[in-house]
Amino acid sequence: MYNIAVAQSGGPTVAINSSLAGVFTQAAKDSNIDIIYGSRNGIEGIINDNLVNLKDVIKNESDTELLMHTPASALGSCRFKLKDYSDSEDDYLKILNIFQKHNIHAFFYIGGNDSMDTVYKLDKYFKEKNIDIKVIGVPKTVDNDLPLTDHTPGFGSAAKFLAVTLQEILYDIRVYTIPAVTIVEVMGRDAGWLTAASCLIRANGETAPHLIYLPESTFSPEKYLEDVKKAVELHTAVLVVVSEGIHFPGGTYDTKTDAFGHIQNAGIGKMLENYTKENLKCKVRSIELNLPQRCASHTASLTDLKEAKLAGEAAVLACTKENKSGVMIAFTRVSNTPYKIEITDVPVGKVANKERKFPVEWITKEGNDVTNDALNFFLPLIQGEPKLEYKNGIPVYFKI
Amino acid sequence: MYNIAVAQSGGPTVAINSSLAGVFTQAAKDSNIDIIYGSRNGIEGIINDNLVNLKDVIKNESDTELLMHTPASALGSCRFKLKDYSDSEDDYLKILNIFQKHNIHAFFYIGGNDSMDTVYKLDKYFKEKNIDIKVIGVPKTVDNDLPLTDHTPGFGSAAKFLAVTLQEILYDIRVYTIPAVTIVEVMGRDAGWLTAASCLIRANGETAPHLIYLPESTFSPEKYLEDVKKAVELHTAVLVVVSEGIHFPGGTYDTKTDAFGHIQNAGIGKMLENYTKENLKCKVRSIELNLPQRCASHTASLTDLKEAKLAGEAAVLACTKENKSGVMIAFTRVSNTPYKIEITDVPVGKVANKERKFPVEWITKEGNDVTNDALNFFLPLIQGEPKLEYKNGIPVYFKI
Repeated sequence: MYNIAVAQSGGPTVAINSSLAGVFTQAAKDSNIDIIYGSRNGIEGIINDNLVNLKDVIKNESDTELLMHTPASALGSCRFKLKDYSDSEDDYLKILNIFQKHNIHAFFYIGGNDSMDTVYKLDKYFKEKNIDIKVIGVPKTVDNDLPLTDHTPGFGSAAKFLAVTLQEILYDIRVYTIPAVTIVEVMGRDAGWLTAASCLIRANGETAPHLIYLPESTFSPEKYLEDVKKAVELHTAVLVVVSEGIHFPGGTYDTKTDAFGHIQNAGIGKMLENYTKENLKCKVRSIELNLPQRCASHTASLTDLKEAKLAGEAAVLACTKENKSGVMIAFTRVSNTPYKIEITDVPVGKVANKERKFPVEWITKEGNDVTNDALNFFLPLIQGEPKLEYKNGIPVYFKI
Repeated sequence: MYNIAVAQSGGPTVAINSSLAGVFTQAAKDSNIDIIYGSRNGIEGIINDNLVNLKDVIKNESDTELLMHTPASALGSCRFKLKDYSDSEDDYLKILNIFQKHNIHAFFYIGGNDSMDTVYKLDKYFKEKNIDIKVIGVPKTVDNDLPLTDHTPGFGSAAKFLAVTLQEILYDIRVYTIPAVTIVEVMGRDAGWLTAASCLIRANGETAPHLIYLPESTFSPEKYLEDVKKAVELHTAVLVVVSEGIHFPGGTYDTKTDAFGHIQNAGIGKMLENYTKENLKCKVRSIELNLPQRCASHTASLTDLKEAKLAGEAAVLACTKENKSGVMIAFTRVSNTPYKIEITDVPVGKVANKERKFPVEWITKEGNDVTNDALNFFLPLIQGEPKLEYKNGIPVYFKI
């Protein structure tokens, strides 16, 4: 009998608790595993010995179900960068000490890029020191920018929130007959996956969004104005979706002095709103969708939640059945129609500190839209609606 | 046999199509009523003879059901201020001409403050000219600021969206252990009803929002800083909800040069974010919830949609059974527990161009929160979740 630990890290998503539920339920079935520790606030909970016995908290299937539908990280999160142990071994020794103190022989880390770096470093350290503690990564990020996996848990729900919300905004903005431009700013500092997923509202016959700008193509303010002018003539109420991380010919957008020489402290959406107003003299509004993109559990993708749970389960099985360590669970898309994925694992060293951009071949020649291939890629990921439990008119969530 | 017309006006809501569905279904049952015209883009559709025969479009109960769940104004909207006819009779004559041309003897206008002004003026004109055309107002506004009604259709859904979203944001912001202030800016330029409804997340045991600021009390930047400092000490992750229309000692917030002497072009939330950052040196984020507050049909309040439909039906009955004109449908709350309303009507002249503020007795002495009475008032209005039809992972809506 041995114990295991699980933690969550990085920016919250809607599906990160489903992966926690997956790790928990799979481990709870294993007669070799005794205590399943939850580490509070990511790896910091290990370092500070801030652990919770999850079997004391998650008591039955309805608790697991509620946890699956709960937004953000039920165990809390952190932004912690583990130093190379050649630079400083201090934290490694603290972590090892806690693992040994609690007889923890496997650690599951649910997170994004930075968390995979931690998985990579810990695994390397334990292997080099010949210590039998396994470390496995479970991916999550709304940015969908982890390499070697078809997509990441958390992304499908963010994409579904975006599609549901953009469709509503589209209905709202076209009630008037006057020309109007609505600019929606979407998360994704370096990769345009989520912004590109705005094309999903076309699945049911809309032509909007009329313009989509990603960080993967250079943004020219002059070309943008031409694009918008044309779109207003064609559609009157124009919906523009723009990534927070679009790149200008001179480099990235600087929030202090923007590409147009103005002093700014708002995001790219507000900046484009001002620029468009000054140059087009029509009604312009910008909307920054902000945190709800990553925490809107009430409109999660059921496919995403289920896959996130499977990823958590697969992490435990990779450790217990296949004796693996230093891997990250990944998805391979076997078939798109019907949609089918296989759950695999990849060496975490090939994922950590790397990012996967949106494919340039899915961006149109003009750099202001995405292709139908992108839509086909995104569509299976947003299918299905979770049934939430409501009390007093608002959803009930789980607390650890 | 005679015909009737119905139109929608002002800013969209989630419930304005339910009122349209109510007018339509009630009128369709009346054997004296032949054609039910929908006027496109509010009263402008009457003036321009841009009408649609709704029986050609809404063909069965499932169409009505779909219409009820569709965001924004299916008939389009307008921002049209009818002149006093003593100043100019032109538009009145155009409207009369179209009504007579199409044998329209009753006009139902679903809208907010400005629309009730149109109802008032048209009714007065027809009565003074002894023309038998009835004009009835059906209220809608997410601002809940119409007088003589307990609440307005559209408000409950906006309040529910706010509660659902704020709860998710709350789960998101407290995953980290570092002090952080999140400022959420809510719609309501003159009245704080919707901002106050943020207290709804307390119904299930949360203490947040930690601070709530409404236009009905004067906002002191110094007091605000003190409030936030205290809240950060107590709660670490602090949720502040602020109305877009808060009032400063010197007057309202000016988006060009703000109360702090900075040049601004963003909203009050962004301005408070900057002010808080400068003075508290902690992590600060602002979120402007923007259009989704008024168009998020996927998280509408079923109570609101049903009441909105009843209001539409009552408007037709007030006209056909009680021979009324120049009235607006209104709600009286007969009982709060169990929640029960009666549907009445009020003279529209007493509503037009007037607004109802949030009661000062429901604001705490410190001016930074609302009382439990407010929560009890709001709670019945957000009950029940509509079942939407999904296709390709996104809701299906109705188009006229």
